[in-house]
Amino acid sequence: MHFTSEQRLDDGVLERAFTLGGIPGILWTPASAPAPLILLGHPPLGLRKMYPRLAARARHSAAEGFATATIELPGSGDRPRWPAVEQARADLRRAMEAGEPVSDEIVDALVLPLVDKAVPEWQAALDALLALPEIGGPVGYSGGVISIGIRLAVVEPRVSAAVLFAGSFVPRALFEEARQVTIPLHVLLQWDDEGNDRQAALDLFDAFGSKEKSLHAHLGGHTGVPQFAGDAAAQFFTRHLK
Amino acid sequence: MHFTSEQRLDDGVLERAFTLGGIPGILWTPASAPAPLILLGHPPLGLRKMYPRLAARARHSAAEGFATATIELPGSGDRPRWPAVEQARADLRRAMEAGEPVSDEIVDALVLPLVDKAVPEWQAALDALLALPEIGGPVGYSGGVISIGIRLAVVEPRVSAAVLFAGSFVPRALFEEARQVTIPLHVLLQWDDEGNDRQAALDLFDAFGSKEKSLHAHLGGHTGVPQFAGDAAAQFFTRHLK
Repeated sequence: MHFTSEQRLDDGVLERAFTLGGIPGILWTPASAPAPLILLGHPPLGLRKMYPRLAARARHSAAEGFATATIELPGSGDRPRWPAVEQARADLRRAMEAGEPVSDEIVDALVLPLVDKAVPEWQAALDALLALPEIGGPVGYSGGVISIGIRLAVVEPRVSAAVLFAGSFVPRALFEEARQVTIPLHVLLQWDDEGNDRQAALDLFDAFGSKEKSLHAHLGGHTGVPQFAGDAAAQFFTRHLK
Repeated sequence: MHFTSEQRLDDGVLERAFTLGGIPGILWTPASAPAPLILLGHPPLGLRKMYPRLAARARHSAAEGFATATIELPGSGDRPRWPAVEQARADLRRAMEAGEPVSDEIVDALVLPLVDKAVPEWQAALDALLALPEIGGPVGYSGGVISIGIRLAVVEPRVSAAVLFAGSFVPRALFEEARQVTIPLHVLLQWDDEGNDRQAALDLFDAFGSKEKSLHAHLGGHTGVPQFAGDAAAQFFTRHLK
């Protein structure tokens, strides 16, 4: 893990860019150290584009005493393009624009390779981050591609609580993995998400094997998650990571 | 409104029993006055039986600066028995024990008379409570029989936000009234509520006309609402009543 830049934000949060095995990432740490860590998931739109929203979540989390970190997803941002996934994305767009149902084949082609490749990368990032003296205590995962969150919750014992955003297509295979999830979950759903199947999201929530799971559904479209939903998610992490 | 007893609880909350037109009630006020008011709904099991849970909600609310009040429901507690509703309750029990679907007729007979009679009583209580110098500001309604909350939200303009518990049967007529609700709503659902139809609860949430509405669903049965759900409800009222 090589730090490539650092800046102190005006609220005292230290923001450092890093690379790890060629993958760019960002780490935010609060003044109080060591701090428990939240991995910030995000959609595959590139870290540069996602930066304002990620930084806002990081500062909000730092105010609650959490360090946060994120890495670029495969095929996104400055990482090499990934023609197979781009093809699946084009197929998805075409089906949605034609008003056709999105087939299992498209969802599998879009999501499964991303999950298979991304999850070991997040685990490698976790190895490196937990070796830093300013990071300590349990780890949470928050947001982004929900299928990545599901897989991480199943295979990575160091992740002990997760906030998941039910806002993207989930392959059938991941529904099966959801039954194996046992960590506390806080699931966000936008009730009128244009590009998401509400019933599938409710079925997924039902499938999770966790004994503590809460669904917070809010009126509005995909990007309309209200500000107060972030406060509730922060309280969830405070309950489980501190 | 006649106060019949008063006691100062150990956290400084003043608890006063009252009667209003022969209906018993309880008012809890925090040290800071005037305070905004939350009406505490409850199931028709009698105030005496419900007292421990109501008092706990009242003290939690007082700690956030809210006054709370509740009145006995018609046919419950020390109020005259109501044979028609008792008959409907017996019919419901019989249907559920026989594993039969609960008919619209049973739900209507159980809930509609209760709503028709209770809602004007809560409005009369509101008249009396808002005349007290220690009560001021906007009013919320919280919990209890959800159909009473729906009707109050439609007909009572002084109620400006509501926490509703989707844990009891809702007549079809109340689904129609739900579309007319426009105040901010915070809806609680127990995901595995034995005596409640989950899909009906989700349909009801969908039907509400409010622009701001959130559904908080938690794993567990009817009485298993987690402690932290109360904190989130309190934050909802703090956002809307202060």
